[in-house]
Amino acid sequence: MNQFALLHITDSEYCFPVSENEIVIRLRTAKNDIERAYIIYESKYVIGNSQQKLQMKKELSGELYDYYSIRLKLEDTRLAYVFYLYDGKEYYYFSEDGATLTYDFTKGFYNFFQYPYINSADILKKEEWLSQASFYQIFIDRFCMADGNKDKNYINLKWGDIPNAKSFAGGDLKGIISKLEYIKSLGCDALYLTPIFKSPSNHKYDIVDYFEVDPNFGDETDLTNLVKELHNRGMKLVLDAVFNHVSELNDKFQDVISKGKESEYYDWFVIKGDYPCASPLNYEVFAGCTYMPKWNTSNVQVQDYLISIATYYIREFDIDGWRLDVSDEISHDFWRRFRKEIKAAKESAVIIGENWHNASNYLRGDQYDSIMNYAFTKAALDYFAYGQLDAQGMANKLNDILARNTDTVNDMMLNLLDSHDTDRFFSEVHEDRKKLKAALALLYLFPGAPSIFYGTECYTVGGYDPDCRRCMDFAKDKEDTLNDYIKQLADIRKKCSFQFSGTHIFASEDKKLFCLKRQGRNGDVMLYINESESIGKEKDIQVAPGDFRLFVCGGEVL
Amino acid sequence: MNQFALLHITDSEYCFPVSENEIVIRLRTAKNDIERAYIIYESKYVIGNSQQKLQMKKELSGELYDYYSIRLKLEDTRLAYVFYLYDGKEYYYFSEDGATLTYDFTKGFYNFFQYPYINSADILKKEEWLSQASFYQIFIDRFCMADGNKDKNYINLKWGDIPNAKSFAGGDLKGIISKLEYIKSLGCDALYLTPIFKSPSNHKYDIVDYFEVDPNFGDETDLTNLVKELHNRGMKLVLDAVFNHVSELNDKFQDVISKGKESEYYDWFVIKGDYPCASPLNYEVFAGCTYMPKWNTSNVQVQDYLISIATYYIREFDIDGWRLDVSDEISHDFWRRFRKEIKAAKESAVIIGENWHNASNYLRGDQYDSIMNYAFTKAALDYFAYGQLDAQGMANKLNDILARNTDTVNDMMLNLLDSHDTDRFFSEVHEDRKKLKAALALLYLFPGAPSIFYGTECYTVGGYDPDCRRCMDFAKDKEDTLNDYIKQLADIRKKCSFQFSGTHIFASEDKKLFCLKRQGRNGDVMLYINESESIGKEKDIQVAPGDFRLFVCGGEVL
Repeated sequence: MNQFALLHITDSEYCFPVSENEIVIRLRTAKNDIERAYIIYESKYVIGNSQQKLQMKKELSGELYDYYSIRLKLEDTRLAYVFYLYDGKEYYYFSEDGATLTYDFTKGFYNFFQYPYINSADILKKEEWLSQASFYQIFIDRFCMADGNKDKNYINLKWGDIPNAKSFAGGDLKGIISKLEYIKSLGCDALYLTPIFKSPSNHKYDIVDYFEVDPNFGDETDLTNLVKELHNRGMKLVLDAVFNHVSELNDKFQDVISKGKESEYYDWFVIKGDYPCASPLNYEVFAGCTYMPKWNTSNVQVQDYLISIATYYIREFDIDGWRLDVSDEISHDFWRRFRKEIKAAKESAVIIGENWHNASNYLRGDQYDSIMNYAFTKAALDYFAYGQLDAQGMANKLNDILARNTDTVNDMMLNLLDSHDTDRFFSEVHEDRKKLKAALALLYLFPGAPSIFYGTECYTVGGYDPDCRRCMDFAKDKEDTLNDYIKQLADIRKKCSFQFSGTHIFASEDKKLFCLKRQGRNGDVMLYINESESIGKEKDIQVAPGDFRLFVCGGEVL
Repeated sequence: MNQFALLHITDSEYCFPVSENEIVIRLRTAKNDIERAYIIYESKYVIGNSQQKLQMKKELSGELYDYYSIRLKLEDTRLAYVFYLYDGKEYYYFSEDGATLTYDFTKGFYNFFQYPYINSADILKKEEWLSQASFYQIFIDRFCMADGNKDKNYINLKWGDIPNAKSFAGGDLKGIISKLEYIKSLGCDALYLTPIFKSPSNHKYDIVDYFEVDPNFGDETDLTNLVKELHNRGMKLVLDAVFNHVSELNDKFQDVISKGKESEYYDWFVIKGDYPCASPLNYEVFAGCTYMPKWNTSNVQVQDYLISIATYYIREFDIDGWRLDVSDEISHDFWRRFRKEIKAAKESAVIIGENWHNASNYLRGDQYDSIMNYAFTKAALDYFAYGQLDAQGMANKLNDILARNTDTVNDMMLNLLDSHDTDRFFSEVHEDRKKLKAALALLYLFPGAPSIFYGTECYTVGGYDPDCRRCMDFAKDKEDTLNDYIKQLADIRKKCSFQFSGTHIFASEDKKLFCLKRQGRNGDVMLYINESESIGKEKDIQVAPGDFRLFVCGGEVL
């Protein structure tokens, strides 16, 4: 047995409660290294009297490692356990003290693994609507303009022209409202909007006033109407919380500029000197941008202020959640307070972090529910666009990504092929329509919630920001869009009500096909993708190079 | 290179800030597998322009793994990094995507490791007094009786007789006060007392009234005097917080017994039924004991109540910290609130959990400062008492234990050979005085704070509870005690002001000697222990079987 590969961490993605009397236990081993894995467990205080031994299931299989899993129902949730592993030759015990050929259960209280007690306060509860949602992400200035009365002097981009960093095309909230039936027709039932608050830029990530809808986008009445129209259609709204930094034009920062250390807001920022100075820069900012000073979120007054914004829009406008901009640069301490107050305001409101990297430390039940799954994005690019992964590599990679998080989190991940912060996926695959369709099928069938960036459905192209933020083309011939295709994928998700459990991702025996199987409540789904250069085969299914096939309940649908 | 062994987890004991601009990065590899490890790093937003490459140091070496480490001083704390490893043949990059022969820095934002920003609120600050303290743990009923006026009718054990579970010998707070000069003469400068609050038992882990000192032990004046006398001597007091459960005689539980669901305290416990019932048991208890109902610490009112107790004794009596009984069965959520309020009441007050297992999830800066280090206890037993570890095994084990936690936590661990909850270490080593002395030398020189259980210094024996709780024998001839020896060890600690960094634990080349080296501020210390059956040698130092030698600044002191 390869002992180096064994990994189990209690109270982590390897050991997590899913209810007050259910817990999932995972164990990592080297790939194809052991024949059987068991868990031997009992209640912590009845050592030796009531041990149970159950076989675990190989649930995930990554590049180097396999991940075995079991879900235990417990009467007494004070769980003590060790693993019992058979490699075809020997049986090993695996405890906090490592792998051993014998194990002294009478001294187990020193070195068994344990989950000492399931406290309800520490359980991350799955928000069902999020796990079942299909998201549509909108960069507002470029989506649709429908406000006939607003002052349009700010608009400097003719709709359809290529934008630059300073372009304003005129999209607004009324435009979004006017397109809700359209969005619904794609099967999308949740919106994620980039920031809507008062800000001088087109992207509005430099907010001047959090308590005012940007006049270019509309007003509070528009926001109220948007939520009402969404909710009437059974749809949800997630807004963008830019709490890492603010515009230099914000009144708090302006007060510090004028009063320096005498300002009551001086400690709301991180400044080395009596006054903030942009050159040489002496205050903390976002990404080197002097016009976006960073909030000091370790300051309790700042926390109060930012949280009051987040709860205001939940209480006054009934929004359904927040996406958190640059959330990984803000303290855990802040997000813990944030979660408590958000969930107190509206239990079903979701919290989705912008963490591009492994964020499992933020996803333990005390901070976020979910993140934007850029690890999935990168895998999709490596497989479909960059040729960095073959079918087996892609299957391994996605298994490894799923192993990063708990079942609960996997079901709530916000999966995406691209966003306002990346090149358009369609451009990355050199406008190969088959690849985009295959990638979308994968997106919709991967555990979690799919999020498509506006325009994906009509083959919008574009490079990195600002090019990925081109104007939406509603005039396109519907036959030349993916609208029906995307609706079909959304319908499959709805029909099947997938849960993470029952996901199987692997490569065909000939290594040419990437295969994804999901057990659905009303039927199983099989997706086969062939990015190799010859025909691939899995059992009696053949797939041509560059093609893919999708089966629901055994019947082919695509 | 053994890729299976590579492990790095951001925002964990593998990556932790130690100040607002300093961070420690660790990497796990297979033991003796690579020749050199480097970190390549830069600020997250200046990718490719300012990479630094620094070599890491092999700091710890366990049974299967080596742990490389480096401490980085950063100007911009938005840290992006990958590892660069040389195994004698190839150079590998190691990122979130695993080990690769090449690495595309231009796509690094998807898969480099990162610590996105050091927020002061997330730093676990080292409490210097704890890291430099020498503790003395007292089981009060058995230590010393000095209260001439109290009602002694409860006493049923003649001082010196063997106790049983129901014995009362009469020890009290006045007794402790009368022995402070004695305790100080051992070099101990911190007391950890088992519970002092009103309770029917001798151990008082079933508390009836948290706001009353148990009359058998004394009263509030005695507690005030104890703290005053301690502080006058530069000594500290840590009390035992039994917040997992309570006595069934507690007024809140009694209210539920009489009123059932109508009681305002019904939800303070976890009861399945209208009234609590002991047989068949229908409410949560501690360790199957029906007389110790478990608090529902997910209930905010219970949290308020328990925290009010903890802060009351800090504010009113100026105690210096809490040891947390059965802390692992209480929610993280509770301990997070607890920490905030404790530290607000007294910043230097310390929080020491009773977690017998890996507790790194509780030691990230948001919950405890430290735990009782029973993993160390078990290693000491396996080496000195049970013959389960030889010198190399012991060195490996202690390295692996140190790798479980951050440098900061290692410096604050409460290390112990035994306690009121274990057999006496001296009995476990079959009353071998040399072994006890060697183990004490290790205890005092291991990173963290040593804690000795009262009576260790006069060779007190005893098996498991209640036998380990025998009466203190102050009458023993001082020549027949370890008093001076322990004072000597404490003085070495004081002189050297050890920090975790600079600890080196290994076996001699002939595998017979266990060797511990610590770099002290005022001199280095070397400890050699020989538990093998023949003479062991490390360079020019020879140690006889069953013996040990200790050098400070090159001079032998023991």
